Amino acid sequence: MPCVLIATTPFGEVDQASLDVLKDAGFECVLNPYGRCLSEEELIALVPNVDALVAGTEPITSRVLAAAPRLRIISRVGVGLDNVDLLAARLRNLPVAYTPEAPCDAVAELTLGLMLCLARGIHQANSLAHAGQWERILGWRLGDLTIGVIGVGRIGKKLIHFLSGFGSSVLVNDLAPSGLPYDVEWVDKEALFRRSDIVTLHVPLTNQTRGLVGDAELALMKPSAALINTSRGEVVDEASLARALRAMRLRAAAIDVFSDEPYNGELARLNNCLITCHMGSMAADCRFRMEYEAARNVVHFFRGEPIDQLVPEFEYELRHAALGA
Amino acid sequence: MPCVLIATTPFGEVDQASLDVLKDAGFECVLNPYGRCLSEEELIALVPNVDALVAGTEPITSRVLAAAPRLRIISRVGVGLDNVDLLAARLRNLPVAYTPEAPCDAVAELTLGLMLCLARGIHQANSLAHAGQWERILGWRLGDLTIGVIGVGRIGKKLIHFLSGFGSSVLVNDLAPSGLPYDVEWVDKEALFRRSDIVTLHVPLTNQTRGLVGDAELALMKPSAALINTSRGEVVDEASLARALRAMRLRAAAIDVFSDEPYNGELARLNNCLITCHMGSMAADCRFRMEYEAARNVVHFFRGEPIDQLVPEFEYELRHAALGA
Repeated sequence: MPCVLIATTPFGEVDQASLDVLKDAGFECVLNPYGRCLSEEELIALVPNVDALVAGTEPITSRVLAAAPRLRIISRVGVGLDNVDLLAARLRNLPVAYTPEAPCDAVAELTLGLMLCLARGIHQANSLAHAGQWERILGWRLGDLTIGVIGVGRIGKKLIHFLSGFGSSVLVNDLAPSGLPYDVEWVDKEALFRRSDIVTLHVPLTNQTRGLVGDAELALMKPSAALINTSRGEVVDEASLARALRAMRLRAAAIDVFSDEPYNGELARLNNCLITCHMGSMAADCRFRMEYEAARNVVHFFRGEPIDQLVPEFEYELRHAALGA
Repeated sequence: MPCVLIATTPFGEVDQASLDVLKDAGFECVLNPYGRCLSEEELIALVPNVDALVAGTEPITSRVLAAAPRLRIISRVGVGLDNVDLLAARLRNLPVAYTPEAPCDAVAELTLGLMLCLARGIHQANSLAHAGQWERILGWRLGDLTIGVIGVGRIGKKLIHFLSGFGSSVLVNDLAPSGLPYDVEWVDKEALFRRSDIVTLHVPLTNQTRGLVGDAELALMKPSAALINTSRGEVVDEASLARALRAMRLRAAAIDVFSDEPYNGELARLNNCLITCHMGSMAADCRFRMEYEAARNVVHFFRGEPIDQLVPEFEYELRHAALGA
């Protein structure tokens, strides 16, 4: 009986069907025993007898692969690949599958929710009211603000779709301009940081995007502006952000992703930093879709059927290029 | 020099221009000295020498009018008229102006923000994270939910416009069905309460809507559902709501308006009640537009110019009808 380690957590809680699809195909399922993102060492200890890995955001390094001689497929629940050493997997001829569409709508919705909270002080009014204080916070209407979107892949595009309903001015930046069916203005990153009332990040974590927002970029932003990160923690220099927020050189931030999760760092001590806990994809229907698709990708592979969600070649080429750089 | 009492608060903070338009027209401006909504008695004490009233949500009763012999116009900053005794004003031949368009977009945006908070637990994750707890809350995508909208005037329509971008199923109810350029389903109130995942209220406070949501309506709702009120506090029976939330017969609520404001009642002691502080119109551009239009309505009247935002006759007819009922 092949064994699948389900490293992502939670799994099968929204709907048992994502576990059943594996069990029905004859897999022994081992769930993450820690209920949180695994460290490299924890993962190494769990993989020796594993034939398939249903992966979250835990580090899937060459050391992990070396400890997993029986492993035949990595199936990511979600879209980010920054935690997977794709080139090490390729050396082993290990296929890597993912679920690129499933989380997008949920991440874009969470981002818009964070944006409305930052614009109107919803979370702050709520905390004060529950402490007995009535504070009528004066905020801004999204339709009256300029929103800067860095990264217009699946999630960025969906967010821009939502924003089009509000009438916000939207500035966008990505590696190269592309056609978008919305009224947006393509600008360079410097102009985007300077002009935006809210900057939101929707890029994958790569060597090019690591530390994309640090001291220099925060210094470009208006003191009245705010930053949102629902992409990957390492895209923002957390220490720089904390300094800017503490000094009120930046009005506010909403951060859902951190370089070290579970997070309990200095941003959690700042009142002007709204914090959620890597919840971008944590909507029942999206979570189920991600889990079910990832499980199905494993089953299809073991049956010798084609997997329609293999990580595309350009992701490997990007890693090769990064090595050469 | 005519004297204008500006009872609403804040006023002129977003932009001095709303005060200047009055000062430049030769008015002596008296600001609300309490910085919060006035009681009837406080208002009575302030009005004896007042020629114009720029009004918030304080009670403008026949007793207040009797104490204001010089008063020539009531100019509401905002759209709700429940606090104004329109028939008493008519007896005195006092014109009443308001600013019905100005607050709508800001109220609809706040409502959507509250909806996303309730759907994803943003405010709860933030409170926990600031207390050192990492809690990945599993929620729902708005696009996957059924939203019940009671009242499809200016604000309800705007909210439905926003929701159309998410793909939510929208149920609507109002005094009579009307044409809406969106894919919605008109249902009776009972079906709306039974079927909705989130019910949101966008009705004026009238004798018909007072206590619109009480024990019976809350009992119809799914235990997994949530209620949002950004209209007027008295539309919801607060004691019934608190009982339902405490017993978890209703999952959650987000309440922005209360029968007695500033509010510090039992809803503020319930973790599953998100509370904001009558902040629907508290967005800088909307607040300024409301204030400026209300000030301009006063100036136009004193110059003998037509006021284009007089309260329409049907509002008086509704009050007459209510008296007869």
